[in-house]
Amino acid sequence: MVSVAIMGHGVVGSGVAEILLTHKQKLFSSLGEEIYIKKILDLREFPDSPIAERFTKNFEEILNDIEIRVVVEVMGGLNPAYDYVKRCLKAGKSVVTSNKELVAAHGAELLALAKEENVNFMFEASVGGGIPIIRPMNQCLVANNVGEVAGILNGTTNFILTKMIADGMQFADALKLAQDLGFAERNPAADIEGHDACRKICILASLAYGKHVYPESVHTEGISGITLSDVTLAKSFGYVIKLIGKVKKLESGKIDILTAPMLVPLKSQLSNIDYEFNGIMVRGDCTGDVVFYGKGAGKLPTASAVVADVVDCCKHLKARRFLFWADGDGSNIISYKDSVSAMYLRVSGEDAEAKVQTAFGEISTAWSDGELAVLTPELRYGEFQEICEALENDGIKILSSIRIGDI
Amino acid sequence: MVSVAIMGHGVVGSGVAEILLTHKQKLFSSLGEEIYIKKILDLREFPDSPIAERFTKNFEEILNDIEIRVVVEVMGGLNPAYDYVKRCLKAGKSVVTSNKELVAAHGAELLALAKEENVNFMFEASVGGGIPIIRPMNQCLVANNVGEVAGILNGTTNFILTKMIADGMQFADALKLAQDLGFAERNPAADIEGHDACRKICILASLAYGKHVYPESVHTEGISGITLSDVTLAKSFGYVIKLIGKVKKLESGKIDILTAPMLVPLKSQLSNIDYEFNGIMVRGDCTGDVVFYGKGAGKLPTASAVVADVVDCCKHLKARRFLFWADGDGSNIISYKDSVSAMYLRVSGEDAEAKVQTAFGEISTAWSDGELAVLTPELRYGEFQEICEALENDGIKILSSIRIGDI
Repeated sequence: MVSVAIMGHGVVGSGVAEILLTHKQKLFSSLGEEIYIKKILDLREFPDSPIAERFTKNFEEILNDIEIRVVVEVMGGLNPAYDYVKRCLKAGKSVVTSNKELVAAHGAELLALAKEENVNFMFEASVGGGIPIIRPMNQCLVANNVGEVAGILNGTTNFILTKMIADGMQFADALKLAQDLGFAERNPAADIEGHDACRKICILASLAYGKHVYPESVHTEGISGITLSDVTLAKSFGYVIKLIGKVKKLESGKIDILTAPMLVPLKSQLSNIDYEFNGIMVRGDCTGDVVFYGKGAGKLPTASAVVADVVDCCKHLKARRFLFWADGDGSNIISYKDSVSAMYLRVSGEDAEAKVQTAFGEISTAWSDGELAVLTPELRYGEFQEICEALENDGIKILSSIRIGDI
Repeated sequence: MVSVAIMGHGVVGSGVAEILLTHKQKLFSSLGEEIYIKKILDLREFPDSPIAERFTKNFEEILNDIEIRVVVEVMGGLNPAYDYVKRCLKAGKSVVTSNKELVAAHGAELLALAKEENVNFMFEASVGGGIPIIRPMNQCLVANNVGEVAGILNGTTNFILTKMIADGMQFADALKLAQDLGFAERNPAADIEGHDACRKICILASLAYGKHVYPESVHTEGISGITLSDVTLAKSFGYVIKLIGKVKKLESGKIDILTAPMLVPLKSQLSNIDYEFNGIMVRGDCTGDVVFYGKGAGKLPTASAVVADVVDCCKHLKARRFLFWADGDGSNIISYKDSVSAMYLRVSGEDAEAKVQTAFGEISTAWSDGELAVLTPELRYGEFQEICEALENDGIKILSSIRIGDI
């Protein structure tokens, strides 16, 4: 029997407890011993829980219980999660978390601490919810140099964009629907401004390239500026607009990473990942493109990924080598202004087509309601910004601009 | 340093050697020690290989070398692979194989032998080539009861069907093109008759439900009977035709498994897996649908999956618990006649629509060139066959019939 504790009894935490109780026999078959929930930490009371007597409001009870070998952190947020996780690791307990904010902010430090203490720090559930991605990237794709990782990493924004694309809804209406259905929070900023997707691509980039990438180093744009006109015009060019987190290894050895809405070509496997689903493409030098698809959030999908890590920790109470990256200082990341891509833009103004053509060279165009949509050739983002500034000085109004994803 | 041997230097085997040599540094970082190819077994000569001096024609040299801890079997076929693998396991060596024929025919026996000898028998590359599937199903989805697995498991047939769907090619022309491009063998029977896909769904079913499923127990239909008319009519109903391997757990506890062409609805994630790509959907009770997509065959994709297993074996020289199933006698499999699905059929004959409607009840229909295409409600396959027989006795000609996949 291995004793575990769960810190947090919210959506994911209650799912973890539920799976450990309802799937006891299946987990026993796999592990060869029982996983016993010894304590659950939450400030609230849960008198109706079948294991109500095991709840505690006191973290020290978990920390000081030497029988508890694995601690699940599903409180979310940085405080007190960061402090608690550090103290658990220092006390020689393995930690499993679904907390992407924690991993993106302190992953390198916590991995180093786990290594020092010869325990595990695992976070399969922090990216892609129930989709297996951390372990496949590290174990199954170990014989690959990863050239690129690109993903639809946030279900809320993908739901909103899908509603705009499929049903012609306005952004604000689609957001409200997402909130009504429980896909988006009342304060949806972390999702719609791209911060959540950014944290996840940071985790995948750290994993793929061995150095911690902090969210502060990553240029991040959200979807609140995407209009129905853009969605419709993108479709007329054969693209759908998706919020993409993307990291690519350049020939220089540096990485090009960003989170932004992108025009995704309809032939891309990411183009038809719709509604609240997530999809992650990993491009290996041996495998080619491998895509993982599924529910990126939700109680049981996320909890099942947490439980898979718990089983792994119970099997390997000492540190496993496969999951590790060093700290990073951002020096391996190029400026987003040096990132190269083709661009979509929507403009208005006199002689727009001629002026834009002169500015960018070979372009594809479409007109809609007196506005001109343009696809440019590939260019540095910094150069794109300079050209746009010059066009604005020349009387052209830039109504929107979106990267074209080569994915 | 861990010494390994590779048996077979064909397409996959030479890829394994190539990756072990070219990705030495990356593998060293992950494993913490070097993987050294001590011997390669092949009856042919490879004087131009950078490690030509390590080739041998004598299996005993590998078997009797106690330094060799991991043996890769990539010869293909059952003989002598089966004998060699057994002897390697008995000699205390872990074995990694990409040989689906071997795993489908003798997996339970070889897994039991490996367990007995406290070594590993691994076969990630046997299903889905470079797509991670065996390990994710066992490790990442360990907290799920798997309700269903369905996949496009054979790239050759998927290439042929895609060419028929996308370019309106006839079956024979598409097959010839696949042969010219090297996707199909000169004798394509194992692919186009469904045997290759059948072996793979057997492996996945064994893994998901813990009892060996032998290919002989699985009803298998190929794609050689699929015509351009069927492809076109399916499209008019909103479906594409794909060769699907599929296993489902029924409420009775038994499993419903088959390999056959199916009409796949366009909204399914499997519908747009095209050309030589494979895709596998796993339906977990916690995660919901998770889909894995990528190249299902080819030298480097398959070899990279083999190497991932080699790394795992080198990390864990003793037996790992996660990969195991017991032998099976087929008693947990229902007859394909008891399998329930809606059907597509194409018929001709006088009063066809009226007669078919009377026979099946509520149907959808489409006419093309004097032939009637019909979608029936769900029914037992045995019942469907009886109705078809009665229709034929009533002067209706059944030109083709294909299951509709609920996937």
